[in-house]
Amino acid sequence: MDIFEAITSRRSIRIFLKRPVPDEILRKCLEAARWAPSGGNTQPWRFIVVRNKEKINRFDPYQNQPWVESAPVVVVCCVDPSTKWTTYDESINNLFIGFLDLGAAIQNFLLTVHAAGLGAVWVASFSPRKVRELCAIPPHLFVVSLICMGYYDESAALGFRERTISNKDHRTRKPVMEFCFYETFGNTMFDEDPCSG
Amino acid sequence: MDIFEAITSRRSIRIFLKRPVPDEILRKCLEAARWAPSGGNTQPWRFIVVRNKEKINRFDPYQNQPWVESAPVVVVCCVDPSTKWTTYDESINNLFIGFLDLGAAIQNFLLTVHAAGLGAVWVASFSPRKVRELCAIPPHLFVVSLICMGYYDESAALGFRERTISNKDHRTRKPVMEFCFYETFGNTMFDEDPCSG
Repeated sequence: MDIFEAITSRRSIRIFLKRPVPDEILRKCLEAARWAPSGGNTQPWRFIVVRNKEKINRFDPYQNQPWVESAPVVVVCCVDPSTKWTTYDESINNLFIGFLDLGAAIQNFLLTVHAAGLGAVWVASFSPRKVRELCAIPPHLFVVSLICMGYYDESAALGFRERTISNKDHRTRKPVMEFCFYETFGNTMFDEDPCSG
Repeated sequence: MDIFEAITSRRSIRIFLKRPVPDEILRKCLEAARWAPSGGNTQPWRFIVVRNKEKINRFDPYQNQPWVESAPVVVVCCVDPSTKWTTYDESINNLFIGFLDLGAAIQNFLLTVHAAGLGAVWVASFSPRKVRELCAIPPHLFVVSLICMGYYDESAALGFRERTISNKDHRTRKPVMEFCFYETFGNTMFDEDPCSG
């Protein structure tokens, strides 16, 4: 799949088929995550692939997030903040950089899931304490996100999202002119927004 | 360009030609950033595109980073931590999520730069204070990263990297088995690592 098409057509999928996810696809997604850039090439991301349903059922997502329990695979995403690489006093600290790097790696992962014809949703509201305990994650790592992934049925996924997500259309985005400026903050770069939609 | 090829062939480019970067390419890169996922679809990223050389020359990168001054375009990347969306006590706080989201948006941007035939390097060590002042960035935003981008000459770029970067091969990555585990942390998922290289 073309890179720009993958980026603009990817969306969160929240209802999954029971069909198992092959190891080859997981490998390819992890390989994609692996090639993300990171500060000083420290690669602070850590992933735990979980298929065990009993374990997944105890991840305790905040409020009602049935997509966690329904996913055949949940990938726990962590940051290792001990991978230090800069001593610049004024700079954003290492932990923040670790989150940035993990975000880049997760995006590579999500794009590769999408290009493989599967769907995923990136989940931030859950109990890191329970996930840490269930997956034996050492105390020095931050337990940051879950990626719930699997095959899906396009029509069911669309209907499900409409029925369950409060923000009716998560596919909307701000126009570029609202988040991008030219030379100084607040100075609009593009008068019109031909890309919006 | 194919998504997986883009992800695995992208690398940091640190020497640029003077050739100007067309607005159309910037638009496409910003459009790619725009479609990144974010917590609660809050889209907390903010970008300032800077072409003014006098301004760029005063960004004060930490240590010797001539790629900042040589880039025809530098994009200042910020997080707006006021875009709150969760109240889950145990969850990672909003600011951390904002950094994750920005990382995903930047990765979309970098992949699109690469697919357009240009190069970029993501810079974290610089003076946020000076950049904030020069670009009139409001106090409530975090000034997080710079993206230096431009056209480049492949052979010159390779030689330059070898001469200037202490880690001789930033193209190396840990094998998947070192950062990915199965069911519990430390439990290797793949015995061999067919993708490594």
